[in-house]
Parts: sequence; structure tokens; C-alpha cells
Amino acid sequence: MSLDKLKRHVCEANKALERNGLITLTWGNVSGIDRSKNLVVIKPSGVTYADLKPSDMVVLDLSSGKKIGGKYRPSSDAPTHLILYRAFPDIGGITHAHSIYASMFAQACISIPALGTTHADIFHGEVPITRPLTKREVEDGYEVNTGKVIVERFKKLDTVAVPGVLVANHGPFTWGQSAQDSVHNSIALEAVAKMAYGTLIINPKVKPLPDYLLDKHFFRKHGPNAYYGQKKNQ
Amino acid sequence: MSLDKLKRHVCEANKALERNGLITLTWGNVSGIDRSKNLVVIKPSGVTYADLKPSDMVVLDLSSGKKIGGKYRPSSDAPTHLILYRAFPDIGGITHAHSIYASMFAQACISIPALGTTHADIFHGEVPITRPLTKREVEDGYEVNTGKVIVERFKKLDTVAVPGVLVANHGPFTWGQSAQDSVHNSIALEAVAKMAYGTLIINPKVKPLPDYLLDKHFFRKHGPNAYYGQKKNQ
Amino acid sequence: MSLDKLKRHVCEANKALERNGLITLTWGNVSGIDRSKNLVVIKPSGVTYADLKPSDMVVLDLSSGKKIGGKYRPSSDAPTHLILYRAFPDIGGITHAHSIYASMFAQACISIPALGTTHADIFHGEVPITRPLTKREVEDGYEVNTGKVIVERFKKLDTVAVPGVLVANHGPFTWGQSAQDSVHNSIALEAVAKMAYGTLIINPKVKPLPDYLLDKHFFRKHGPNAYYGQKKNQ
Amino acid sequence: MSLDKLKRHVCEANKALERNGLITLTWGNVSGIDRSKNLVVIKPSGVTYADLKPSDMVVLDLSSGKKIGGKYRPSSDAPTHLILYRAFPDIGGITHAHSIYASMFAQACISIPALGTTHADIFHGEVPITRPLTKREVEDGYEVNTGKVIVERFKKLDTVAVPGVLVANHGPFTWGQSAQDSVHNSIALEAVAKMAYGTLIINPKVKPLPDYLLDKHFFRKHGPNAYYGQKKNQ
Repeated sequence: MSLDKLKRHVCEANKALERNGLITLTWGNVSGIDRSKNLVVIKPSGVTYADLKPSDMVVLDLSSGKKIGGKYRPSSDAPTHLILYRAFPDIGGITHAHSIYASMFAQACISIPALGTTHADIFHGEVPITRPLTKREVEDGYEVNTGKVIVERFKKLDTVAVPGVLVANHGPFTWGQSAQDSVHNSIALEAVAKMAYGTLIINPKVKPLPDYLLDKHFFRKHGPNAYYGQKKNQ
Repeated sequence: MSLDKLKRHVCEANKALERNGLITLTWGNVSGIDRSKNLVVIKPSGVTYADLKPSDMVVLDLSSGKKIGGKYRPSSDAPTHLILYRAFPDIGGITHAHSIYASMFAQACISIPALGTTHADIFHGEVPITRPLTKREVEDGYEVNTGKVIVERFKKLDTVAVPGVLVANHGPFTWGQSAQDSVHNSIALEAVAKMAYGTLIINPKVKPLPDYLLDKHFFRKHGPNAYYGQKKNQ
Repeated sequence: MSLDKLKRHVCEANKALERNGLITLTWGNVSGIDRSKNLVVIKPSGVTYADLKPSDMVVLDLSSGKKIGGKYRPSSDAPTHLILYRAFPDIGGITHAHSIYASMFAQACISIPALGTTHADIFHGEVPITRPLTKREVEDGYEVNTGKVIVERFKKLDTVAVPGVLVANHGPFTWGQSAQDSVHNSIALEAVAKMAYGTLIINPKVKPLPDYLLDKHFFRKHGPNAYYGQKKNQ
Repeated sequence: MSLDKLKRHVCEANKALERNGLITLTWGNVSGIDRSKNLVVIKPSGVTYADLKPSDMVVLDLSSGKKIGGKYRPSSDAPTHLILYRAFPDIGGITHAHSIYASMFAQACISIPALGTTHADIFHGEVPITRPLTKREVEDGYEVNTGKVIVERFKKLDTVAVPGVLVANHGPFTWGQSAQDSVHNSIALEAVAKMAYGTLIINPKVKPLPDYLLDKHFFRKHGPNAYYGQKKNQ
């Protein structure tokens, strides 16, 4: 994919984030990566979604983190994105939002348990919460350390099976094969969070899904035996 | 009704499902049946609603379940629809969605009690919850078995009096005289679920409606003595 | 006002009801009255709001309740409207809806307490709940008896000071000087109900407003010393 | 800024308030001030937002509170705005709304605790609740006294660090460098209130953010070391 095409995709993904009701003001950003060139394309900081043009996107070098294209400052969360791209080689796009229901769980410092098949269609297990950052981690290199606690949380988790996380006291990050796919997973996460919220209120003693149902739904949509949707790669 | 007309109706019903706010991403599907020809028309799997055209609809043979028309794969829930059409001869359309409030009750594994006249206008009694599927039922023939637990749950229930169900851990299915009518009942179910949710929070000791009020509202709108709406069949 | 103008106003008020998010499907109706001619104009039963035209409105004689104009059946709730117009000579319009939060309180059989100045701006005291109808009242003359329990509930209440009510197990009715004004009060009631719902969850021990604050806000907007809005009658 | 430009800005800010879903009916108003001329521009009372034109704005003298321009009566809350402009010399715009979730906390008479970084991005600490007004304060000079209890509440608080307040039993006021900025803070407050509401339900024992995280997020966006957004003043 050319860099121009990636900029168009990332720009469009940022607009899709707002169009799907996940955004208040300018609180959210989407990025995408070209793995062949080690270039990350990300939303500029504090710019409204309606005004975004592909040429406004900021281009960063994956290794150094330096800006190598674009007239604006990158999103202030860019260092978090870079840490995730370096640690998770399978991901092609990242979305960060302060969507309401996912942020409620993040603020409550509680993982979102897998309470239904809607959840299992996207997340193969709970959407995990990170540990809170320490005073030192907040004061020195905050955005880098936000990325690091996410990576730490995924030491024993698979980023394909669980394409998102809640940062304690903060909000959700999701990822996917592309910028657009990471937005898709943020939309799903917000719906799943709202359903979990109400489910826990209706029945505080509800248990997470049994593993066989979790497996069934997740692998209906993912992996070599998936049978949801149309055949794409044939 | 010609097959082309049924495709148009089913296509339009799928779009109506999204327009009424019952859909996240592509999580929902509507079908309709031509009883004279034993043909079921259903949404293709994983296609976005905005793009749907009548010619995209998939045609299935009721008895064999085989695809006999359409270029796409049918919704992955098609085997559930087929089981319901075979078991419930009075129904002409089926809607499955993951609408938020109905899914909360499904995930909580709790029936929606008849707490008000809004409920009674559409459902003559609680909207029942199925039993959870067993490990074996999930692993082998999951979608068929989803249909079977619904049929099992309705052994002593009337599908006209109660045009919908919650599948445990999953979400709602509704049905009706036509595809459009099944969407109508999904819209009603979501409103009824949201009202029940809040009613139980405001007053956890609230009791279901007495039978005479349930009867009054249901039969105002259904059956030979109905007097709601305009006379249609005269 | 000519009858044609009243039809236009009532038609527009019904559309405003939907536009303001108070309607699911066709669950709601607005009427207006011409006191000089004793004619009530009301929405036809079961017709969608988008399709409504002024000429579709149904005209009823206040005294006899008989239809004297319009090609459709009137709303099935018309007998309730007629009882209220006869009992409350000060009102010029009535709205009935199944708006979600007001219906939650109605289903919970609990009045909406006056918990804030938003409430006090419109309702001078709690929005009262009626008693439930008896079996006999439901089975014989249900809609008339719905009107009667509202009138009974207002024996010691002022319909100008409290322009709305919750019918137990059912939903809200509001009224006002005109059809449009009754819709205005339904919009206010739904917002007030949602605020009360959350307030009671955040602080279950919250007390209703003191009388002096209730008086202040209500009489800022109503009566001879009102000073909210622009001078209309000078 | 010319007075005409200030009228355009204040008119547009009032419309933005409605467009962002913070308004029911006409319950809300925005003002702005020209500090060089001591002139306050405010919405007229009870006029719908869709109809507002810049020339409808009302101009008040800051010192005397007298109307010196505009054909309409000013918002009935104008005396509260004037008190705040006199007491808080740093603010350039004020928004008052009855947005649903912020009003829930106001009605519950509970401050909104700083439970997440979304909150800390805008408010450096809890959004405080005023004390209730006394009977005498309500009956004589109500709107002036509403301003005075806000000023009293901020005796030890910084209006730049905490650009908003909840008036007990009533609702929120926010402020900012301009009319538009005060609307921005009302939008943020409503999102923050909704997140806090759900967070407290999910985890009633949740603690406010530690100071170092509160500081980090607030000073990322505010003050000389801010690094969120684009450089504006260079």
C-alpha cells in the first residue's frame, strides 16, 4: 500500500470513529502502519474529525519515533502507539478512544468479563485491565509507560485472540489488522461493555461463558475454520 | 408473492433493522418465507446493511436447507431460522439481532417479565429465556441446536401470543407474519427490555401485570376482537 | 381557531412527539380541543407519524364521543382523552406516549418526586401515579376507566400546577393549553423522569425539594408573576 | 473583538450547546463578555435555539446589569452570569445547561469525583457541588444568590483549574476563556458525569485518581508545559 493510500485509510478510520458515536470532542485517535517501510501514520493532536484531510495525517518512523512527514504535531498518545507496534508485530492499526461504557470499566479498574456470545465473537476471553501506573511511570515518560503496561499485561495473552485492553483509570485501546479493523474492534468493545454493564446490574451473580461457548463463537469468526462472512482470500 | 418481491421485502426489513438502532456492525439478520414454495430468503453473512440489494439475498430450500439462489453465503444463523420455520408453521418472518437491552437479559439468563402494558401490547406473558446449550450441543451443530432449544422452550407456548425469545448467553430472536412484522417485534422487544431494566432498578419488588390487564392489552391489538389500528382485512 | 387550523396543529404536534424521541413504533397520540365548538381532534389509530396529514386527523364530538369527521378510526385511547377534556375544563391539548423513562416509573407504580429545579420548572410537586385499575375496570370500559382513575387522582390536585400523570402499569399522560403545549410537557416529563432515575441511583436517600424552591421555580415560569421567557400577552 | 463579532460567537455557542445534545427544550444559555468594554452578551429568555440570530442577543452592562442592547428580555439566569463575571476576572464565557447526567449529580447534591483521566483532562479535581440556598436566598434575589453560592464555593478553588460547578438541586454551570470554550467544558462535563455515574455503579468502592495522575493529565492540556493539541500562540 502506498503512503498516500495509508493516509487516506487512517484519515477515514478517524472519521469512522466519530461517526460511530465513540468520540466526545477530540478524545480519540487512530493510526495505521506500513510494516514494509516501518512507517506509522497517525491523527494530528487536537484537530476536529470533521476537518481532517488525508494530507493532515502525521507520519512517524517506527524505530526512532521521529516525525518524517506532516505539518502538524502527532496525537499526544503517539508514543503509546509506537510501543504497541514494536511489541505486537501482528497488528496493523490501533484505535484509542474515551468511549463511555468501556471507559466506565477502565475507571472502575475492572476487566470486562465475557458474559455473552456478542463478546465471544470478538474477544476470546475477558477484555483485560492493566495495572495502574506508578507515580514514577506517570511523571516520567507517561505515554511510553502506558504502552509498556499494556505490553506487560499481554505477556501471556494473544493479541489476535484479544484485540483490545482497558488502561486502568483511563480508557480502551483496540487494535487489528488495519486502522479500519481497529475501529471495528472499538465499536464492538463499546457495545460489549454496555451489554456487560447492564447484565451485571440485572444479575450480579452471572458467570462468564463456559469455554466451549467462548471457543465456538470466536472460532466461527476467526482462524482457519471460520465460517462467518464471505470467503475473502480465495 | 413472487420471489423477487419477497427478496425486496427481506432486503428492506434488514435495512429497517439497522435504521431503528437495533444493529451494531453486522450483528443481525432478517429472513422471510414463501410457504407455498417452501423457500426461505435470508440476508447474506457479514454484509453491511447500507450495501444490501434485493439481488444479494440468499434463497434456501426449507426442507433440505440447501442454497438454491444468490451469489453469497447465507447468514451463519440460517440453520436456526430453518429449524424455526419447520417447527412453527404460523410464522412468515424471523429477526435475529444483538440489540443492547434484550441482549442484557439474554446474557443475564433471565426472562423479561411482563411489567407494563407496553409489553402486553406485543407479548402475552414474559419473553422467555431458553436453557443454556450443553457442551455437546455447542460443539456439534451449534446453530441447529440453537433452533432446537427455542422450539423446546415453546413446547407449551403459543408463537402468536409470544412472538419472541431470548437465547441464553446470546440474544433475542423474534418472529411474525412477515419479515417486516418480525422486525416490528424486535423493535418492540428492545423498548420493552429497556423499560423492564429500569423498572426493576426503580422497584426491585415490582410484580408482573395481573392476567386481566395482560389479556386486555394483548387482545386490544390481536385476534378477532382487536380494535387497535385500522381495519385491514375488510 | 378554525377546525382546519386545529387539525394542522394536532397533526404537527403528533409529528413533534416522534421528532423528540418520545415514540417507539406508533405508541403515542396527541389531541387538541376547540372549546367553543366542543370538538376534539385526535390522531388516527396505528398510523405512522411520517405519513400523517392534517386531513387524516379524526374529529370527535366532546359530549357524545361520536366521530363526526375523518376517514380513519380514532386512536384507541380516544375515550381517555374525552374523559379528561370533560373533567378538566382548563386544558386544550393532551399527549399520551410510552416514553421510556416515564414508563419505567409508571411500571414501577411510583410517583416521580420533585428532585430538582428542572422538575419544578414544569411540575409544581411530584408527578403522581394513579391507583391500578381493578379487574372490572379493565374488562369493561377500559379506556374510559383509565380516564376516570386519572380524574380521581386529581381530585385534590390542580391540572395547571401539575400538567401530567403516570397511569399505573401503563405510562404517562400530559396536558397543556394546546396540543403543542401538551407535547412540550411530555418532553419535559421524559427528561425529568430520566434525571430522577439517575438521581435516585446516585443518592437513594435524596429528599424532594423544599417547598420554597419548588414555588420559586414554578412561579418563575407560570402565573401572574412569571418572568421567564418573553412577554406574550401584552 | 467588535460587539457584532461577540454576538455572532455567543449566538453560535448557544446553537452548539443544542447541537451537542445538552439541551432539552430551551433549558440552557450561553454568554460571553467583552472585558475591555464591560459588556456581557447573552441569549434571550425562552427563545428556541434553531431560531436564534446574532441580532437577537441581549447586551448587558457588567456593572449595572442593565440592558443596553437587544429587543428581547435576557435569559432569566443573567443575574447569575453577571455575578460570576464580576467575581472571576479570568473567565470570558459562561454556559448553563440542564444536561442530564450533570444534573443527576446536582440533584443528588454530590460532587463529581475525579475518577479517570477523561475527567483530569478538563477538571483538576472534583467538580464541586455548592451548598443548597436558604429559604431567604431563594425568595429574595434567587438568581443573584445562585451566583453568590458559586463564588462562595470557589473561595479556595481556582476557576482555571476547575472550570465548572454543580449548583445543588439545580444543575451545572461551566465557564472558559470564551463563550465557545465554556460550551466545550459543558460537553466535557456531561461525558465525565456519565462516566462517573457508571463507574460508581460498577465499582462503588472506587477511589479518586491519585494526585500525580490528576496533575499529569491536567497539565498535558493546560498551562505553560501543555503538549496536547497544536501550538496556537506562536
